[in-house]
Amino acid sequence: MAHRYKQFEPKWFHGKIPANSYRSIFKWGEPNQIKAPRESLYQLIRDQFGLTDEAFKDYSEDLGLDEVKLDLPVKLTAVQIARFAEIVGKDYVRTDDYARLSVAYGKTMYDIMRLRHKIAENVPDAVLYPDAKEQIEQIVAYCAAEKIPVYVYGGGSSVTRGVECVKGGISLDMRLRFNKVVNFNEIDQTITVEAGMSGPKLEETLNKAETNFGAKRAYTCGHFPQSFEYSSVGGWVVTHSAGQNSTYYGCIQDIVLGQDYATPVGSISTDRYPRKATGPDLDHIMMGSEGTFGILTHVTLKVFRHMPRTIKRFSYMFRDWETGQAAAREIMQSEAGYPSVFRLSDPEETGIMLHMYGVMDSPLKHIFSGKGFRVGKMCLYLGFTNGEAGFSRNCAKNVRRVARKYGGIWLSGIVTRSWEKGRFNDPYLRDTMQDFGIVMDTMECSVNWSNMSKVHREVRAYVKNRPNTVCMTHMSHVYPQGANLYWIFIAHMHDPEEFRRFHAGILNAIQKSGASMSHHHGIGKMFGPWLEGSIGRNEYAVYRALKQHFDPDNIMNPGGTLGFDTDEKKKRFLKDHS
Amino acid sequence: MAHRYKQFEPKWFHGKIPANSYRSIFKWGEPNQIKAPRESLYQLIRDQFGLTDEAFKDYSEDLGLDEVKLDLPVKLTAVQIARFAEIVGKDYVRTDDYARLSVAYGKTMYDIMRLRHKIAENVPDAVLYPDAKEQIEQIVAYCAAEKIPVYVYGGGSSVTRGVECVKGGISLDMRLRFNKVVNFNEIDQTITVEAGMSGPKLEETLNKAETNFGAKRAYTCGHFPQSFEYSSVGGWVVTHSAGQNSTYYGCIQDIVLGQDYATPVGSISTDRYPRKATGPDLDHIMMGSEGTFGILTHVTLKVFRHMPRTIKRFSYMFRDWETGQAAAREIMQSEAGYPSVFRLSDPEETGIMLHMYGVMDSPLKHIFSGKGFRVGKMCLYLGFTNGEAGFSRNCAKNVRRVARKYGGIWLSGIVTRSWEKGRFNDPYLRDTMQDFGIVMDTMECSVNWSNMSKVHREVRAYVKNRPNTVCMTHMSHVYPQGANLYWIFIAHMHDPEEFRRFHAGILNAIQKSGASMSHHHGIGKMFGPWLEGSIGRNEYAVYRALKQHFDPDNIMNPGGTLGFDTDEKKKRFLKDHS
Repeated sequence: MAHRYKQFEPKWFHGKIPANSYRSIFKWGEPNQIKAPRESLYQLIRDQFGLTDEAFKDYSEDLGLDEVKLDLPVKLTAVQIARFAEIVGKDYVRTDDYARLSVAYGKTMYDIMRLRHKIAENVPDAVLYPDAKEQIEQIVAYCAAEKIPVYVYGGGSSVTRGVECVKGGISLDMRLRFNKVVNFNEIDQTITVEAGMSGPKLEETLNKAETNFGAKRAYTCGHFPQSFEYSSVGGWVVTHSAGQNSTYYGCIQDIVLGQDYATPVGSISTDRYPRKATGPDLDHIMMGSEGTFGILTHVTLKVFRHMPRTIKRFSYMFRDWETGQAAAREIMQSEAGYPSVFRLSDPEETGIMLHMYGVMDSPLKHIFSGKGFRVGKMCLYLGFTNGEAGFSRNCAKNVRRVARKYGGIWLSGIVTRSWEKGRFNDPYLRDTMQDFGIVMDTMECSVNWSNMSKVHREVRAYVKNRPNTVCMTHMSHVYPQGANLYWIFIAHMHDPEEFRRFHAGILNAIQKSGASMSHHHGIGKMFGPWLEGSIGRNEYAVYRALKQHFDPDNIMNPGGTLGFDTDEKKKRFLKDHS
Repeated sequence: MAHRYKQFEPKWFHGKIPANSYRSIFKWGEPNQIKAPRESLYQLIRDQFGLTDEAFKDYSEDLGLDEVKLDLPVKLTAVQIARFAEIVGKDYVRTDDYARLSVAYGKTMYDIMRLRHKIAENVPDAVLYPDAKEQIEQIVAYCAAEKIPVYVYGGGSSVTRGVECVKGGISLDMRLRFNKVVNFNEIDQTITVEAGMSGPKLEETLNKAETNFGAKRAYTCGHFPQSFEYSSVGGWVVTHSAGQNSTYYGCIQDIVLGQDYATPVGSISTDRYPRKATGPDLDHIMMGSEGTFGILTHVTLKVFRHMPRTIKRFSYMFRDWETGQAAAREIMQSEAGYPSVFRLSDPEETGIMLHMYGVMDSPLKHIFSGKGFRVGKMCLYLGFTNGEAGFSRNCAKNVRRVARKYGGIWLSGIVTRSWEKGRFNDPYLRDTMQDFGIVMDTMECSVNWSNMSKVHREVRAYVKNRPNTVCMTHMSHVYPQGANLYWIFIAHMHDPEEFRRFHAGILNAIQKSGASMSHHHGIGKMFGPWLEGSIGRNEYAVYRALKQHFDPDNIMNPGGTLGFDTDEKKKRFLKDHS
């Protein structure tokens, strides 16, 4: 993906990445795919950070091309390893340094910075590659008996330190073999898969249901998080994921019909009925447990008709953030059907997107100025609809009606297409830019409409208080009662600890402003210390009771996930130092 | 509601009901409203049970007009009663027989039969009428300290023995004073109410939001269970209720945004964010707990725009049950928007509805016979749409398209209007008919599409195996993955124990056929003994762990609710004797 640079082109790294290197672990996505920003975006970033081209002539950061070498002895006994080999097969237990490190970290910038610095602090003793539910049940039972910590690695795109093996033990890498279709039921429109099934494989399987299952038509999973290409179905479920099309298809909890778990106290299988009134909803007790109650093995998902031809794309520019918000709320409250992708960018993000998509080089520029819309004030709204043709058309018509009412300028579907092209690719930019010390990460939170302006103002103020820091915000995953606010921040930074503190400060600002800690990234170990304070002591005690029930010896994803086994002293320390 | 009878009119009871009588407790609905079946329906029922007019010349059952008198001493101490009086005010603690019995039973036929037989076995020692959340918190804390059982009476329409005070103690009657609006937020489209708020009061409050709150428009709660007029918001939430318009508005769990509970281990307040990824969903842990974890105090609900003028009514006749099912599934899977009311009757129910609505006296009769549609085979489908005008129109258009595809005969909106007129009134018929020993009750279950025919066939076979028993079934609350099957059975029966066994037999048949125990009635004490067997031992152990956490001394709705404190012997006995 090479853009032509007219003036200066930074020394973007395009080299081959050694197979056993740190970079091969922290790099986003396809091993051979590299993406650099287009020239105008590069210039914007360079100027933002008060840098000159000079700073981009050579790398300021370690490229991470060295071979992975750990100085961490395997603490499992030979007997234990032999038992694991008996369960999954001896080729599917690995204790070499590379295998161990490759499942230890996720993809938050803190992980990547640590890997660039060769900080490998929390790796498992062994990596297992199961290929059947029964194997996982045996592994969990054995680990419960032997008190061996158990971690899971799905797609590897956690941004909450969710997969980190703080207590050693084993990690189950689900990607390799635990990724098969268990059952497809066209009458009920459901598919049951093993939890390691990847997003793209699931979607392809469903798109080709006619060939794969002799189905009458093609289906879609409807769930496309930004991390889609490197995410697993199991990861979606246990972290409460939301896809970019969630406003129409729902978030993962709306798509899950049933789940099976292997827990230290035995297997749990929730029913697959469309709805029931038989006590508290077990699916919701297990979803969001992030591996701390047990390991998700099989998942039954609802599937949807694949109707790409009914999509209606739209994009509008609103005069300012308040107007855009009002329009967004009206669209979601008018009961005309929800759009699928729904994204309203704040002024700063709008400015950068206009650069990225080259809009300011087009005649649209004159329309904006003619209407008195100013860069730095105006807000880009884009999205598309899904569903049956008439439904989709009516929904887009309603968007148009509301956009007009609020004085939005129609930008055609082109901007939306540009966004779609990059929707899963933007994370690639991170690695390329970070070679020069430019770090980019995200935070997100759930907000009610009536508090939206306050949250935006206060969290933004915190981020912008740091000199030369980009803070792009958009609203996505939208509801009649509110929306997700998503923050992308870009800074010039080297030290992982500086990053961690900055990140924690954003989390504090989010909570202080009255938003939820997370809309869809989950809690993991990174946000764990704040959870009890955020949801309340009596409320958190319910989680503790469930944890105590499922995992009395604390072997499931131990070391702070969801705030379990985090002592008060550590919580205080983390909060004081952020 | 007097119908003119041309031939014989039974001696329907139209007398005044004494204020302190058993009948005033078991009678459905408005004290002065009495409803008798129209003549054709009466004749159908009479013939069905092989009876003659003779049997309807005088009552075979006790009318229940005697004054309530119990021989059950109050077991609370004077100190305890004084403490309650201190909390809620001395006028709001009652220990008289009538107050005690009036909150002891719900509205399943087993309750009514027992009341007619003056069987008052499970009454509270005192009834409290709280009017603030803080009072309820104090009551629960005091009862936890004193180990006094705590029950709650909301709208009183439980059909699962949910409110029955098996262990004595106190019952909180929420109807009188705990029914106020706490907050209305038009920006977020939410309302927060006290849990005793009744359905009709909530709906009226929202319909008149312009006057009540100076709102910009009128709203609706979107939740209309059959028991609407005698149901409370708290009851909806803790029993997992579903309204007749749930296919569009969602069931109660889709409408609840947040809840507050008073539990023996302190107060719980869930957040009010539109969505979050902060661990297991506390709302879902508390919903469906049926008073066994704590008492629901405040509820925040989503509200919807009140747009009665956009409603599109429809009704169609399908050739047979299989064709109707196929059409229903196609409507729900085509992604054109869901209808709001959605009801497909099986052949037996269709036959009775045609009688009730007088359709067979209209020219439609000839259209049916012309097309070869036969009574006993054909199935009535009716419903209406809600939402913004274009959405509602598109949804109705899709229903029409699918109905045509499956050869449905269009019956105009008249049949739907007839159904709407009676939608909350039908329960009145029960009391009138039962004076002659005709009992009528319902069961319901959740079923996946691929198992629909089997469940219908097998459960129906069980009911029809009893001589002279009516078994009407319809599908309502419909999803892309399946639907609720709702059973109305009518029989000639006197003995409450015979009823209980028959009822339990239906439940067994439902479970054996592969359906859930309940779609929306809940479990209560009536279905409690089956719950563990139905959801599984490890799965049920999760409920036990939660119960142990919230209520270690078992004071919250004790005596078998959700199967808690039901011993194995009793479970076996109940199952063996059904």
